[in-house]
Amino acid sequence: MLEINTWTFWLRHVLEVAATMAFTLSGVMAAARSRLDAVGVYAVAFLAAFGGGTLRDLLLDRRPFFWVAHVEYLWGVMALTTAAMLFMRQRHFAPTEKAMQLPDALGLGLFTAVGVDVSLDYQMPALVAVLLGVVTGVFGGVLRDIVRSEIPSAFSDHRPYALCAFLGGWVFWGLQTMPMPAWLALVGCVLVTAGMRLWALWANWRLPLWRVD
Amino acid sequence: MLEINTWTFWLRHVLEVAATMAFTLSGVMAAARSRLDAVGVYAVAFLAAFGGGTLRDLLLDRRPFFWVAHVEYLWGVMALTTAAMLFMRQRHFAPTEKAMQLPDALGLGLFTAVGVDVSLDYQMPALVAVLLGVVTGVFGGVLRDIVRSEIPSAFSDHRPYALCAFLGGWVFWGLQTMPMPAWLALVGCVLVTAGMRLWALWANWRLPLWRVD
Amino acid sequence: MLEINTWTFWLRHVLEVAATMAFTLSGVMAAARSRLDAVGVYAVAFLAAFGGGTLRDLLLDRRPFFWVAHVEYLWGVMALTTAAMLFMRQRHFAPTEKAMQLPDALGLGLFTAVGVDVSLDYQMPALVAVLLGVVTGVFGGVLRDIVRSEIPSAFSDHRPYALCAFLGGWVFWGLQTMPMPAWLALVGCVLVTAGMRLWALWANWRLPLWRVD
Repeated sequence: MLEINTWTFWLRHVLEVAATMAFTLSGVMAAARSRLDAVGVYAVAFLAAFGGGTLRDLLLDRRPFFWVAHVEYLWGVMALTTAAMLFMRQRHFAPTEKAMQLPDALGLGLFTAVGVDVSLDYQMPALVAVLLGVVTGVFGGVLRDIVRSEIPSAFSDHRPYALCAFLGGWVFWGLQTMPMPAWLALVGCVLVTAGMRLWALWANWRLPLWRVD
Repeated sequence: MLEINTWTFWLRHVLEVAATMAFTLSGVMAAARSRLDAVGVYAVAFLAAFGGGTLRDLLLDRRPFFWVAHVEYLWGVMALTTAAMLFMRQRHFAPTEKAMQLPDALGLGLFTAVGVDVSLDYQMPALVAVLLGVVTGVFGGVLRDIVRSEIPSAFSDHRPYALCAFLGGWVFWGLQTMPMPAWLALVGCVLVTAGMRLWALWANWRLPLWRVD
Repeated sequence: MLEINTWTFWLRHVLEVAATMAFTLSGVMAAARSRLDAVGVYAVAFLAAFGGGTLRDLLLDRRPFFWVAHVEYLWGVMALTTAAMLFMRQRHFAPTEKAMQLPDALGLGLFTAVGVDVSLDYQMPALVAVLLGVVTGVFGGVLRDIVRSEIPSAFSDHRPYALCAFLGGWVFWGLQTMPMPAWLALVGCVLVTAGMRLWALWANWRLPLWRVD
């Protein structure tokens, strides 16, 4: 139905904007903690915001990229980064690891949902679609860390992160096979992914370390 | 002839499976040595196993990727990684540099052969095909090291590695121009690449260092 | 007019060759300072020389890559790298940071101009074209640093570098909208980018640090 299509279209658009903003801020904060210069802050913010979706689109061979079709995303991330830098400078604001947790968890859930959705549109098999959802959600943060010469925290901090996206991706896949409105799958994936991430942080749940002793 | 085509088809498929398994194990071992968490082990295993072939396919604009056309590769690498982690955990098994040498050398030779073969199918010039063979063989290991924030051992350990793949790639190119069955070129490339690598390790042959003193 | 087209065609070709040589040398010097082995020197030289243009072409979905259409680029970079290594070895030549500044500044300006030009040919919006120009100019150096496990100097040395390319890119965009010969935009972009970079180094101009204290 047209109504549902419009609903889904808008929901996905709003999710994409919100997730892009969340990851931009996580990039700015990470760059500041690495004592990069202003150019480095912009670069890391762009990588964090667009890295996951761009790799997904490259792998799907999907053109134009969303930031070419919607140049306003690029302008928006530049403006947000500038605003965040000015604000941080004026307030002598030190971004802590804690301050990054909420935007990060939301961005993860939002990007994963959009990533699985787009991949299924491209007729990918279930496992590929879910993994591309994880890539969409996680790869921006991975690039953000690699470019600062750190081991990606997604792979080394012993907290479930990509794992939440992986499970949330399967939730999306399961819900969209059922006869229910499309936006429910989006919402379900976001709630499961972000909720599980925040719950894991709160409960201090740790992934097993692989000791080699 | 049909017979030869079938032969070559199967040989290439078996080589791809074997090489993917070898690089998966090298990724698991490297991740364990870097003390990553379980998610990191899966990620590094996937990068090591699929990184080279995926970059080759991206550069050739070859779709679908082999892990989309054959999702069983993804399931297989996940299963193998899980099995390796459980095994390492139970036996308190410490993967040493030595334990990685044989699977690594075989994987290098196998991936290089497949990479040159595919690139020639895409009408690449000889040098490009050989370099894409090297990329197929080496880039998985390079990603495996970059993501763990280490200088890729392929570029810094002063042992011939990419060099073996480069020479093996030219062997493949030379053999396939001759009037002989196609599988001979595959076998020749694997034997030269892996053999040279193992011989170099055994003979302790070292690449010159570029001193800057 | 044919005359102008030929002019522009040749100018762009000469610029591309010169920029590729400049970045190759910067890669060789960086690899030598990181004490990589001979294979690593070739790899870093290739990444520095072809990384920016290849990422631009990947993002634009532009095939064949320039180093596939013109394999002589690959042979040239291999030959130049070999010559540079032999020369450095014989003369006990220690490449200093200073020695890298001039080729780097020229390469930056040249690659940015070519990058914006190609992107506009592909009907990219202005901001995307300018950013792809920056990517063309900067990403080779970023890869050169990431692969040596260093934070890219473009993001952390507090000297304007990507910023020069960004402004030079807008100069190109502005000039090519005006009714003047096409080669003027190329020359203008190179002069502004490289000139600003060298001036900034000479005047010791520093980008603000983002302190987090």
